[in-house]
Amino acid sequence: MQQSLEDHAEHVVKLARDRHMTLATVESCTAGSLAHLLALAEGASEAVHGGFVVYTKENKIAAVGVPLDLLAKHSAVSADVALAMANGGLERCPASLVAAITGVAGPEPDEDGNPVGLVYVAVVARDGRQRVEKLELGNQSKGDICRAAVQAALRILEDLLAAHVP
Amino acid sequence: MQQSLEDHAEHVVKLARDRHMTLATVESCTAGSLAHLLALAEGASEAVHGGFVVYTKENKIAAVGVPLDLLAKHSAVSADVALAMANGGLERCPASLVAAITGVAGPEPDEDGNPVGLVYVAVVARDGRQRVEKLELGNQSKGDICRAAVQAALRILEDLLAAHVP
Repeated sequence: MQQSLEDHAEHVVKLARDRHMTLATVESCTAGSLAHLLALAEGASEAVHGGFVVYTKENKIAAVGVPLDLLAKHSAVSADVALAMANGGLERCPASLVAAITGVAGPEPDEDGNPVGLVYVAVVARDGRQRVEKLELGNQSKGDICRAAVQAALRILEDLLAAHVP
Repeated sequence: MQQSLEDHAEHVVKLARDRHMTLATVESCTAGSLAHLLALAEGASEAVHGGFVVYTKENKIAAVGVPLDLLAKHSAVSADVALAMANGGLERCPASLVAAITGVAGPEPDEDGNPVGLVYVAVVARDGRQRVEKLELGNQSKGDICRAAVQAALRILEDLLAAHVP
C-alpha cells in the first residue's frame, strides 16, 4: 500500500528532527503544497522553516535570485533552474536542506513549449550534497502531477536525510 | 450561502487581472495555503507571483527581513510583525499587493504565550495603501483557524483591489 503524502511528510520531518536538520522549499508548479504538507507534520515548528513560492519567472529572479540568463537559456522547467532555485533558497533561508520543484502541471504546455507533466525536482544540502531528478509524468491532471512532484521531493529529502548520520 | 475559498480566490485573481495588478503572500501559520489557493485560480500565471512561507522566526528574519527587535518586542503574532512581513514581501518580490498572515493555529498557545486563534492579517499595496486586521478566532481546530485567516486575507485583498480603479 502506498504511503499517504501526509504520512510521508511526517516521516521526513521526524528524520530531520532526529538529525537536528531543518527543511525549506522553493516551489513553482506545486505552489506551496510541499511547504504546507511539511508544516502540518508533528514537530514541524522545530524542523520546517517554510519556503518560497515562485510561480512567475519574475519572482524566481526576485525572490530566490535565479539568474535571468539561466531562465532564458534553459527555460524555467530545467535541471539548471531547479538547482538554481534550491541554491537560492539555501542562500536566503537558514535551512540545512532545500527542495525545489519546477514543472508544467498543465492543462497546457508552458510558454516555452515544455510539455505537460515535465517536472524537475532538486534538493540541495548545506553540506554540499545535491540531487536533481527529471520526471516525465505525461498528460495527467494538474492535481496528480503536483502530487507526484511532491512525492518525489519527499523521497529525495528522505534519502538525503537518511544518509546523514547524526 | 457562503462562498467557497476557491471561488473567493478565483474572484480575487480576476479582480487583479482586470486591474493589471499582481499578488503575493507571506504566510506563517497558514504555511502556503493562501499562495496555493491563489495559484490554483484561473489565469493565476498572469496575476500571482507566489510568496513566502515563513514558519519560524529565523525565517521571518532571513526570508522577508522582519527585524529581530520587532519579533522580540511584539512577538511573531502582532500587527507590527504582520505589517513587517507584508512590507518585506513587497521589497523582495514584484507584486503590487502582498498579503501576510501570522497567528497561532494551535493546538497549543505559541512559545510567547499568544492564545490559539489569535491571528493578524496585513495587506500592503505598492501604491502605499495598507490594512491590518486582528482576528480572535478562539479555540477552533487548526484547519478552521487557517481557513478563517485565509478568508480574511482574501476579503482584504478584494477590498483593496475593488477600490483601485484601473
